[in-house]
Amino acid sequence: MKADERGAAGSRTPGRATRGETVPTVPPASQAARRTAVDVSALLERGRTLASPVLRAAVDRLAPPMDTVAAYHFGWIDAQGRPADGDGGKAVRPALAVLSAEVTGAAPQTGVPGAVAVELVHNFSLLHDDLMDGDEQRRHRDTVWKVHGPAQAILVGDALFALANEVLLELGTVEAGRATRRLTRASRALIDGQAQDISYEHRDRVSVEECLEMEGNKTGALLACASSIGAVLGGADDRTADALETYGYHLGLAFQAVDDLLGIWGDPEATGKQTWSDLRQRKKSLPVVAALAAGGDASERLGEILAADAKSSDFENFSEEEFAARAALIEEAGGREWTAEEARRQHTIAIEALDAVDMPDQVREQFTALADFVVVRKR
Amino acid sequence: MKADERGAAGSRTPGRATRGETVPTVPPASQAARRTAVDVSALLERGRTLASPVLRAAVDRLAPPMDTVAAYHFGWIDAQGRPADGDGGKAVRPALAVLSAEVTGAAPQTGVPGAVAVELVHNFSLLHDDLMDGDEQRRHRDTVWKVHGPAQAILVGDALFALANEVLLELGTVEAGRATRRLTRASRALIDGQAQDISYEHRDRVSVEECLEMEGNKTGALLACASSIGAVLGGADDRTADALETYGYHLGLAFQAVDDLLGIWGDPEATGKQTWSDLRQRKKSLPVVAALAAGGDASERLGEILAADAKSSDFENFSEEEFAARAALIEEAGGREWTAEEARRQHTIAIEALDAVDMPDQVREQFTALADFVVVRKR
Repeated sequence: MKADERGAAGSRTPGRATRGETVPTVPPASQAARRTAVDVSALLERGRTLASPVLRAAVDRLAPPMDTVAAYHFGWIDAQGRPADGDGGKAVRPALAVLSAEVTGAAPQTGVPGAVAVELVHNFSLLHDDLMDGDEQRRHRDTVWKVHGPAQAILVGDALFALANEVLLELGTVEAGRATRRLTRASRALIDGQAQDISYEHRDRVSVEECLEMEGNKTGALLACASSIGAVLGGADDRTADALETYGYHLGLAFQAVDDLLGIWGDPEATGKQTWSDLRQRKKSLPVVAALAAGGDASERLGEILAADAKSSDFENFSEEEFAARAALIEEAGGREWTAEEARRQHTIAIEALDAVDMPDQVREQFTALADFVVVRKR
Repeated sequence: MKADERGAAGSRTPGRATRGETVPTVPPASQAARRTAVDVSALLERGRTLASPVLRAAVDRLAPPMDTVAAYHFGWIDAQGRPADGDGGKAVRPALAVLSAEVTGAAPQTGVPGAVAVELVHNFSLLHDDLMDGDEQRRHRDTVWKVHGPAQAILVGDALFALANEVLLELGTVEAGRATRRLTRASRALIDGQAQDISYEHRDRVSVEECLEMEGNKTGALLACASSIGAVLGGADDRTADALETYGYHLGLAFQAVDDLLGIWGDPEATGKQTWSDLRQRKKSLPVVAALAAGGDASERLGEILAADAKSSDFENFSEEEFAARAALIEEAGGREWTAEEARRQHTIAIEALDAVDMPDQVREQFTALADFVVVRKR
């Protein structure tokens, strides 16, 4: 789908800026209010509880020192090797993987090897991406390459990637083979997305379409896999798995749109990131790209300012006010509102994809509740 | 198996040095002469011819610029993107993979996706290992990270690894799932071997046993997979596949022992490496480790000299004569003869493993001829 066929920034009148909110709450309140029966925290907790011990057992299989390096990465130990109670993240992917098993009538447990494999692939990509991008911090901690060196970051990333396939294939079933094939496809997309991300860094301009394609690869593909892998392990046919992948892919795009909003306007207390985090990193995220594509005075001024910033040797020392001014310009050009609208749009496509799948009502409600959670979250 | 149970250097009287040979020809001439019916060059050429176009088509699937970076790595283009006629290597692995399909009575073509997958995994590991080890040259050319940067070396390595699984799993058969599982196990061993290699670099002493374990992981496991993957794709049972893996594993150890001999005493004209190549890199290869473990005057003197070398700031400027003196000491301590004997021993175990498998006589002769080739090669 081309960006301009879907109401991308270029073809829209920049929306009026929604001021005064620190945290963007994307879907209309009515929509979120409609569904209150599902306890999303419990759903996330279930995925975490089921997947964690199996994930830990898998990582324990790694030969030293890779097991220790991986345990540090996952936040189970600190840099000195002492037990730590790491921030395991939101755990949306494991929740989706075990939920998707229930689509076929299987027990949530059926999805666990899928949940673990997806987490392993996700963390393989984090280890390698942090090194490639030179990122020194993740989840408030030094990244693996900073603590254990680049070689360990490469090696342990490789090991987690291999382990992901191992965890699935040792099930020895036809379903496991199909699940691994889908996971492999998602992994390739992840790698493609990182390749795009790297190449975009060296370019002045990135189109909305390119940005969405990159985000689809980096975030959509693995959420697609997470949303279907339990079902595949439970014996779902390809049509069902594909529809669940469509749900997950668009949920991933909604997720990323919200992430991009939080990356600029998020509350540092909630996100744990610096103010204007993505602007400080000169990230060509959706709000920026959409604002630049929107045309008009604010858009043009923003383009000039960012072009000057790219050459500035003083960028590191910019004040809060200077970043705030850029954020205001992005908002004025319509980049914030367009991205919020895009999150809503992708959220809707995701929910609608569920219509193609026959599943218990309760499971459908839980998929919907997880989608709502993704777009209203504050971190 | 413990090193001291198998006649390792520590328990042997250092053998008399075999002098005057530039290139070690490992098996007794009588053994090599026994088998002349098989044209090994034709066997290697068949593997290369069958696998190459499929390998190229797989690599072509990578998104730019990864396709170009990979093509450079494989030697198909030069650093400027011009077509090149790269040294494709000896192609022992593809020859084994297609040959192993014939064990089951299948056509050699049945083994091709296996051959391609194994080559992809091998090259994934080369890309990452060269970066981790800081190696600037491979096959007389600058390595990928030198030409295209570390990020591309990581990324394209990842992509080749994913592609390996994809090439197998898209066959969509039960056999492909089993083959992928074995390939995943081999990949994990490869990664374990690299982890050991890195950790041994920081140690003064490595035992013969540790060295053999590392070489089994780095070389044995993937040759084991290559030797059985065609058979697995052809529907062989696990017992047959395991026996072929045993053949390949020990062939890998024989291969590596010969490589370690060539790394010190190889003819630079034939190997394309510098004289005393492994000594210049302070590699704790089998001849060195065996010489250090042998005990006796020469062994002790060698230990003292290498310990001093490790601290020397002038090591880079050592003369030919200084390296030659170290090589002579390794030989005097019995490290050369022990390693040649080890190659013969592993070659014998490999051949004997074939006895457990029912296969056409011609196929058996070809496996045997490939094993002979591995130990008599000069490069």
